[in-house]
Amino acid sequence: MKINRFEENPLITPRDVSPIHEGFEVIGAFNAGVAKFKDESILLLRVAERPISDNPTIIKAPLIDKKGELQIIALDKNDSDYNFEDPRIIRRSNDLSHFEYLTSLSYFRLARSKEGRHFTVEDKAFIYPFNNYQTMGCEDPRITQIEDNYYITYTSVSEMGICESLALTTDFETFEDLGNILLPENKDVVLFPERINGNYYMLNRPSPTSIGNLDIWISQSPDLKSWGNHKHLLKMSVGDWDGGRIGAGLPPIRTSKGWLEIYHGATKDNIYCMGALLLDLDDPSKVLAKTKSPIMIPEAPYEKEGFFGDVVFGCGGIVNGDILTMYYGVSDTSMAGCELSISEILEQFS
Amino acid sequence: MKINRFEENPLITPRDVSPIHEGFEVIGAFNAGVAKFKDESILLLRVAERPISDNPTIIKAPLIDKKGELQIIALDKNDSDYNFEDPRIIRRSNDLSHFEYLTSLSYFRLARSKEGRHFTVEDKAFIYPFNNYQTMGCEDPRITQIEDNYYITYTSVSEMGICESLALTTDFETFEDLGNILLPENKDVVLFPERINGNYYMLNRPSPTSIGNLDIWISQSPDLKSWGNHKHLLKMSVGDWDGGRIGAGLPPIRTSKGWLEIYHGATKDNIYCMGALLLDLDDPSKVLAKTKSPIMIPEAPYEKEGFFGDVVFGCGGIVNGDILTMYYGVSDTSMAGCELSISEILEQFS
Repeated sequence: MKINRFEENPLITPRDVSPIHEGFEVIGAFNAGVAKFKDESILLLRVAERPISDNPTIIKAPLIDKKGELQIIALDKNDSDYNFEDPRIIRRSNDLSHFEYLTSLSYFRLARSKEGRHFTVEDKAFIYPFNNYQTMGCEDPRITQIEDNYYITYTSVSEMGICESLALTTDFETFEDLGNILLPENKDVVLFPERINGNYYMLNRPSPTSIGNLDIWISQSPDLKSWGNHKHLLKMSVGDWDGGRIGAGLPPIRTSKGWLEIYHGATKDNIYCMGALLLDLDDPSKVLAKTKSPIMIPEAPYEKEGFFGDVVFGCGGIVNGDILTMYYGVSDTSMAGCELSISEILEQFS
Repeated sequence: MKINRFEENPLITPRDVSPIHEGFEVIGAFNAGVAKFKDESILLLRVAERPISDNPTIIKAPLIDKKGELQIIALDKNDSDYNFEDPRIIRRSNDLSHFEYLTSLSYFRLARSKEGRHFTVEDKAFIYPFNNYQTMGCEDPRITQIEDNYYITYTSVSEMGICESLALTTDFETFEDLGNILLPENKDVVLFPERINGNYYMLNRPSPTSIGNLDIWISQSPDLKSWGNHKHLLKMSVGDWDGGRIGAGLPPIRTSKGWLEIYHGATKDNIYCMGALLLDLDDPSKVLAKTKSPIMIPEAPYEKEGFFGDVVFGCGGIVNGDILTMYYGVSDTSMAGCELSISEILEQFS
């Protein structure tokens, strides 16, 4: 499988993005939703900002309180009540299965380009945490264009859980909040770009607690705001490249063979690759084929090293004939781009 | 708070129910959904059947396979790969946060009564696991009457997770499957008995994985099959009687003061009590009041002892003027009944 990684990669790094919070540093500009809008390629970046700590033994956690004001929790690295092993989260030592704080606050910012390789990042946030479900930030947006509407699905993180929210923009200047569309815990939601037999569809990835794996499910809706008829779609493959978790990546792409879904899978050791899935055009709850091997694995230095290395994480792309320009987050740090041939991906199934 | 427990309690015990599987014993007839239908009080019992084991060192786990056939897994109690501590579930020793099997198979059976105290249990199942989401059974039904339709919300349990499903009956002879209405993991779903400002509402209890507690959420729907606008409603109270988990109990009851919701709370040590909640009539996502103490705690011997003791678990009731006849599961074993005064419950809020 040939992947033309852009020579300009990484396209956007934290250094290209100035923080909007005083005393913070940008540690990630990654996992962007992607749209073609008028003559522009648009990336809706997840920007992660971290409070600068002058004292290496003090770890700071940002949090937006119920009044909408930014608070910073300062914790001593030597405090045995807490566990700081994972750089992304802070856990209580007596409960390592949950996190208590995140070490950064994520929100969304637009980057625009005419030719798709050199992007200008806007100075201000496009979506900044605006309700109590987002006190710990907004993460991993995907954009699906349905007619002239651009729907943004993203996770809202708070002490109440990680739920999936929906926003709508028609101009990439303002957005409308359409509420929480899935209950905790759910991530990696992509909408299909058109109605199928009268219904809207989405892929999503619940996190079952008592029994079940981190698998992909498919749900349907009459109006995009309310979802039901939830069905299990794809199981992770224990022991394989996608044996730790899987989740939808790009919004599904209509091809003559079926809906092409490019999704991510991670091993138990958190190496994130991209695979491909083919779904029935008339009934997308039917899996027609799945690539046995990943179509893309972390290889380039910027994919292997960073805040959280060994991650390629595509959230969107732009299709032009047979060419899919995929933009993807690398190492929970930066954005990169590549070109793939759709027909060549489809050949992987046969 | 005065509770008139029925003298006839427990009303239905496992001994009153004959197993429908050969070589099985009924170990639970409990947590029933409740409806008033024509001149009958109806209990939709959760019946749990367990394969009889002649050998005390062999634990058997029932399972319905993908062909719809009942299989029995036999495990040796001395097998250190498995953990048999909780009598309800079998876990892998290296992963105590999930279960692998249930020790019984649950399904639903109708019991009918003219006067509400002496029930006749039907010989056959009313809802028996019928799809791949129910290979480990169906649990804890609630019935909400909306006009002449009786909607049954219940959990479907399989290796894919625990999701919430919806069925409809108009005659208590047959039912229609309306699919999975909530993704895993979710339990304790009750519908409101009427539209509010044009929308249907439900209470539900997701189980967040990474962050969040076992709290009650409220969701809305245009059609009962698709759900959105999910909002957090009530937090469990760490350290209190409802500090382990909470979940909706009875379908909400309309009163002049607001929607009365009688819900269950459990301590960390799994003592299950019932509390009460008052929600705004026009916007049920607004909590007006909550009882500080439970309105009912396990006291009677049949509430304190059984398969899983110290549990009162109300899933439905019948209102007649000021009197609420609540039917409730006891100790994950049997059904009991009691009468409460609605006005007296409302006084607990002031």
